[in-house]
Amino acid sequence: MKRHEMAGLTPEHFQWSVTDRIAVIRLNRPERKNPLTFESYAELGRTFRDLAHASDVDVVVLASNGGNFCSGGDVHEIIGPLVGMEMPELLAFTRMTGELVKAMIHCGKPVIAAVEGICVGAGAIMAMASDIRLAAPSTKAAFLFTRVGLAGCDMGACAMLPRIVGQGRAAELLYTGRVLRAEEGERWGFWNALHDDVEAAAMDLARQIAAGPTWAHGITKTQLDQEWNMGLDQAIEVEAQAQAICMQTRDFERAYRAFVAKETPVFEGD
Amino acid sequence: MKRHEMAGLTPEHFQWSVTDRIAVIRLNRPERKNPLTFESYAELGRTFRDLAHASDVDVVVLASNGGNFCSGGDVHEIIGPLVGMEMPELLAFTRMTGELVKAMIHCGKPVIAAVEGICVGAGAIMAMASDIRLAAPSTKAAFLFTRVGLAGCDMGACAMLPRIVGQGRAAELLYTGRVLRAEEGERWGFWNALHDDVEAAAMDLARQIAAGPTWAHGITKTQLDQEWNMGLDQAIEVEAQAQAICMQTRDFERAYRAFVAKETPVFEGD
Amino acid sequence: MKRHEMAGLTPEHFQWSVTDRIAVIRLNRPERKNPLTFESYAELGRTFRDLAHASDVDVVVLASNGGNFCSGGDVHEIIGPLVGMEMPELLAFTRMTGELVKAMIHCGKPVIAAVEGICVGAGAIMAMASDIRLAAPSTKAAFLFTRVGLAGCDMGACAMLPRIVGQGRAAELLYTGRVLRAEEGERWGFWNALHDDVEAAAMDLARQIAAGPTWAHGITKTQLDQEWNMGLDQAIEVEAQAQAICMQTRDFERAYRAFVAKETPVFEGD
Repeated sequence: MKRHEMAGLTPEHFQWSVTDRIAVIRLNRPERKNPLTFESYAELGRTFRDLAHASDVDVVVLASNGGNFCSGGDVHEIIGPLVGMEMPELLAFTRMTGELVKAMIHCGKPVIAAVEGICVGAGAIMAMASDIRLAAPSTKAAFLFTRVGLAGCDMGACAMLPRIVGQGRAAELLYTGRVLRAEEGERWGFWNALHDDVEAAAMDLARQIAAGPTWAHGITKTQLDQEWNMGLDQAIEVEAQAQAICMQTRDFERAYRAFVAKETPVFEGD
Repeated sequence: MKRHEMAGLTPEHFQWSVTDRIAVIRLNRPERKNPLTFESYAELGRTFRDLAHASDVDVVVLASNGGNFCSGGDVHEIIGPLVGMEMPELLAFTRMTGELVKAMIHCGKPVIAAVEGICVGAGAIMAMASDIRLAAPSTKAAFLFTRVGLAGCDMGACAMLPRIVGQGRAAELLYTGRVLRAEEGERWGFWNALHDDVEAAAMDLARQIAAGPTWAHGITKTQLDQEWNMGLDQAIEVEAQAQAICMQTRDFERAYRAFVAKETPVFEGD
Repeated sequence: MKRHEMAGLTPEHFQWSVTDRIAVIRLNRPERKNPLTFESYAELGRTFRDLAHASDVDVVVLASNGGNFCSGGDVHEIIGPLVGMEMPELLAFTRMTGELVKAMIHCGKPVIAAVEGICVGAGAIMAMASDIRLAAPSTKAAFLFTRVGLAGCDMGACAMLPRIVGQGRAAELLYTGRVLRAEEGERWGFWNALHDDVEAAAMDLARQIAAGPTWAHGITKTQLDQEWNMGLDQAIEVEAQAQAICMQTRDFERAYRAFVAKETPVFEGD
């Protein structure tokens, strides 16, 4: 496996920076609350697929821009063209959006969403496909698909939302498309926490996780997906195998040596 | 497919009305807190199976009667006879009760429970098998099966309750059969919300959902069931297919045209 | 099946007592907050496996000792030796720890954790593998694996924790290893309830559950595991079969007779 460095990436459709092994992504059309387009979907998907092989990134923060996270698929640039498409093109589009979620889930790095303001439609899905979701008190999330005449089953929503907030609350959000207020979302477990300065909080958390045994974090991420649909006995066996592998990392030994020496362990990700 | 109109239904064992494409069902023995009998189980099951083909119903409200929702299987009319039955009859009974839940899940229309007062045993299951559950502050729910010497696994309870309130809370309710108080149930996500006038709130919500897009709502309902037990990658692909189908409905185009014209979309369910 | 009595058990690595058909287990190294060792893992696993056949135990309480529940795998007695092991030994160890969880899940008796103070690492897993979790307000739980350089996938954590507290909250706890405070854990559904005298509350609950119907409780426990990974239609059919079996127990008839006689049923577990 050759090393794949991503710090120098210069994407067209979103902002990108890497500092201290933390990549920060933010959509770059704040004047319109950061809608997605065909091009930004595709470029985000490619980037998350590449992140699976990145040697210089350990954690990803999906941040807001201009006080908003993402307003979902652009009405003029996405919904308009879709209305005139035939099935092969439509399926190509819905699969491309799904590929973004798959790429986020399989990127091997924890993803933290730092959400301000509007977080709707595909934007709410991107937040949902993140591992940890922090929000500003002003945040309004909504699964708007029903409002544009579609079903709630978009990009994995009917699978993911019930596992995050429970089946009953998920059904209500998906049938009505109503706004989930920030404090309600925290109470339901959609948001892990609310912070006035949500980006600072997300960066603090990202640094903490990046200081971790990052190789082991990648296994945690893999297992959270692998065990999604598995019997409990089987899950326990796959965890026995996965954790035994982690016990052969140097980070495990480093933690032990540090403990014996009454020091804080310094993990190196191998 | 021929059109199947259900507004004129005259069931024997529950009240039935259809107004503005919303069917309202309520059990009709308020003097005994609306127990279920062999006959009402069977007639409810048949009715929900027929609803899958109904051309004049878009949403179902399961309402209360005389201040109570349902007291579960009648002790004299159900439990007494069961005590004397052989296995083939017993299994025929438990399958019939399960068929009611299956019929609710496969009826293709969102079901809203509007629950007042007593909601226990099979009544709690009927609430649980609804998509959205609203309750009056006075509501007492309980999974009473253990109190009559049975297991908590009745009509899908061990599968559904953990997905709604979490595995730990579900276990407690099923082992103890204790009353779930209304405010606690809201906090846990069993109730979507509490309302003093729960039936008015349920009818408002039903009208909102019936305003569409109803064909897409049917797909949302289908997917919430289909993805119950599926890997996440597989769920994302089935949603890509399902949503692409919805993008060929006229309701999707209507929403787009309305948006461009700065109007509120009027969905027609096709 | 011969009767297997366990009241006289004299384990080496934990305290054991059986009173009124309730077994109480507590680790016996309170001076070090009750760490686990290779020996106590193995002995606990064997004991829970034997409990599946116990004729004199109906409920198990996992209690605290000296104000703490369990500090997880001992750094000196477990982590140190693991650092030097080859893969076959490592996998033998992780499988042994997983076997403890499997044995708890398959023991056929409801397990109630009564947690005070420190409840971390494998201790948090033992609490999680219990059916019902009560905690003192002082309790600090943490999934510490990441702190020792390992992944969060230990003994089934990536499968179980999301089903108890939701996917988002589980991810945060597993990536950070942070302390879950007691009131937060109750709000999230990790703890069923908080009690100042948690052991008294656990014993009250244990007596209530042990009052029966215990044979049906065993079926509830089995079904909560069996339906973990099953489609909803399939779950409804397996419950129809399981509940029909329960309807042939004498406890079901006892409950009916008591109801008709306006008495409290006395269950006998058959």
